[in-house]
Amino acid sequence: MQNKYRLMSPGPTPVPPEVSAAGALPIIHHRTPEFGEVFTRVNETLKKVFLTESDIFTYSASGTGAFEGAMQNLFSPGDKVLVVNNGNFGNRWVKMGAAFGLEVTELVYDWGAKADNDEIADALATDPEIKAAICVLSETSTGTVNDIEGFAKVTGNAISIVDAISGLGACELRSDEWGVDVVVAGSQKALMTPPGLGFVSVSERAMRAHEQSTMPRYYFDFTAAKKAYAKDPPQTPWTPAVSVIIQLDLALQQIMAEGIENVFERHVLLGRAAREGIKGMGLKLFGPDEDLNSAVTAAWVPDGVDGRQLVRGIFRDQGIQVAGGQGEMEGRIFRIGHCGYFDAYDIIATIAATELTLEALDFPVELGKGVGAAQRVFSKSGAVA
Amino acid sequence: MQNKYRLMSPGPTPVPPEVSAAGALPIIHHRTPEFGEVFTRVNETLKKVFLTESDIFTYSASGTGAFEGAMQNLFSPGDKVLVVNNGNFGNRWVKMGAAFGLEVTELVYDWGAKADNDEIADALATDPEIKAAICVLSETSTGTVNDIEGFAKVTGNAISIVDAISGLGACELRSDEWGVDVVVAGSQKALMTPPGLGFVSVSERAMRAHEQSTMPRYYFDFTAAKKAYAKDPPQTPWTPAVSVIIQLDLALQQIMAEGIENVFERHVLLGRAAREGIKGMGLKLFGPDEDLNSAVTAAWVPDGVDGRQLVRGIFRDQGIQVAGGQGEMEGRIFRIGHCGYFDAYDIIATIAATELTLEALDFPVELGKGVGAAQRVFSKSGAVA
Repeated sequence: MQNKYRLMSPGPTPVPPEVSAAGALPIIHHRTPEFGEVFTRVNETLKKVFLTESDIFTYSASGTGAFEGAMQNLFSPGDKVLVVNNGNFGNRWVKMGAAFGLEVTELVYDWGAKADNDEIADALATDPEIKAAICVLSETSTGTVNDIEGFAKVTGNAISIVDAISGLGACELRSDEWGVDVVVAGSQKALMTPPGLGFVSVSERAMRAHEQSTMPRYYFDFTAAKKAYAKDPPQTPWTPAVSVIIQLDLALQQIMAEGIENVFERHVLLGRAAREGIKGMGLKLFGPDEDLNSAVTAAWVPDGVDGRQLVRGIFRDQGIQVAGGQGEMEGRIFRIGHCGYFDAYDIIATIAATELTLEALDFPVELGKGVGAAQRVFSKSGAVA
Repeated sequence: MQNKYRLMSPGPTPVPPEVSAAGALPIIHHRTPEFGEVFTRVNETLKKVFLTESDIFTYSASGTGAFEGAMQNLFSPGDKVLVVNNGNFGNRWVKMGAAFGLEVTELVYDWGAKADNDEIADALATDPEIKAAICVLSETSTGTVNDIEGFAKVTGNAISIVDAISGLGACELRSDEWGVDVVVAGSQKALMTPPGLGFVSVSERAMRAHEQSTMPRYYFDFTAAKKAYAKDPPQTPWTPAVSVIIQLDLALQQIMAEGIENVFERHVLLGRAAREGIKGMGLKLFGPDEDLNSAVTAAWVPDGVDGRQLVRGIFRDQGIQVAGGQGEMEGRIFRIGHCGYFDAYDIIATIAATELTLEALDFPVELGKGVGAAQRVFSKSGAVA
């Protein structure tokens, strides 16, 4: 039998039907009061999701593009930055920093391990010339979520930059309360919107660093964005992805209707259920078994099973798109994404599909055991009462 | 009475209903055979619209972002480039070149005037160190289309770079036949797709320049794109705007169904009808009255009429979104965009709305005179027989 297509990857993620439908609305011009109204609401609502009063710039680009914007706007060639590298994305910011002529101090951790904030504090104390520290919130490649509250505490005079591309709107991140200067995010994860938009929030302190920065830039220039935002109607300096912004507007309204605190709690439950499901079917988690990891759940492919066959089987035979490992973990782990528009039955279906695929691959599994463990998480919480 | 919303701006432009509808399709993962199939078809079809065998890189960014990619990938700081500046967009590439540390030789023309290819040849002969020459195909700010066939002839050893953001798929541009090295385009104009994608085609000669280039880059890196395109399934290095690419795929199929030569001819007729309509109602064209100008028609706001009131009236009272002047032409000219999904009745409606608005502003106009002139263009051509 043919199953429905279910996207359970860590990004892009499925979008709510209302958000999908808005993708079919007529294109409107981006320098009109009509678009200005949407854009103003998007900017105001983004602040309630980022939990910041800072300016947030919306770019037509992926999260990687927005991160490039942060680097170009905050630094000058030769500036020293500290980058926490505990996975594929931390590693990407190391490479990007090097590409733009920054002097990168790298704190490397095993994939799956959490960053150690004491070590970050030590590294910054050792070299007071380090201008900024970069850490990933949810490391999509491993499922591990770093302790950003602690990170922001130890960064001191250094500008704190958080890659929240796959975490924002899923994992707790209180930008202003915790003192995070710069948060980079993307539309296609927990913001429940198609890919195509990247965001950067910029604290006043970071904006002062921008004013000193000499890195060449144009498309991602903060000053050009700020100037266009201040126009009447508010706009972007270059033609934005109008249809995706209109979709984002609706997705943000849905997040507001659920309540950001409820969104955080829902993700904690989704992550807990995914982990219990994995353990319940006899597999081992990759990375810490803790509630912090609420965006992506990664598990080891068990001995005797081909990791690529497992991921392909869950997709080809069961219709559920989970992700394999990236980089050094390719074929060794698999990942279930649950940041964004996901509920209890998405997790239950994915755990059930994993059990069925393992059975098909002759791995000993008791059907329903992992599912039951996931169900009990929701039962206890009253989430599906 | 309330009229329908008609987008007659030079970008973004309206998209066909099938393309709109595809914006509501479920999001698929970008590293799957399903997406690879779409992406392969898009890449192959883009070549038939660019009329090139060169690699074409698709970026999640506006055309300005894609242009930044061209600059970052082809040059090293201090490189000399020639930029033709005959409007707002030529002017933008001058500023962008300066921002990235290029030594820019600027050939400035009055807004509305065409670039003089003999002068370009002279400038290149005077300084043989100039590495590349940049010219806009359709200067959106004025409606003037430059003679790119002639431009490519005179560029000689310099790499020829054409901003075809608002021209590609409307105005004749035979990249390989004419010998254009690099063509930059965007999704939101004649490609009949929502904004959010930018494109750069790169000839072999330009790719060799890329290999010598030391400009810092990451997000727009040609080499990263080329490597990802070569994977199985073909993909982008970073998460692309999946939904816009799926829409582009459909739009490109529509362009292929109409036939690129027919698309060029349709735009020539649309431009001719718009110009005859403007002249027929007693207004003066801005820029040359020639068939080359097939993407945007610009006209002087007549004496005694407030340009902002005219544009606002055509939009607020008639529902038709035309554009005012940009930069130094703000309030002095107005522009009708007809690059992309436009037909005879879009032009007829716009000319009629302009007549009605002029009448409402007490400017003497004989209703139907401009419309009749536009109709005669279509009647003669047999286009609406």
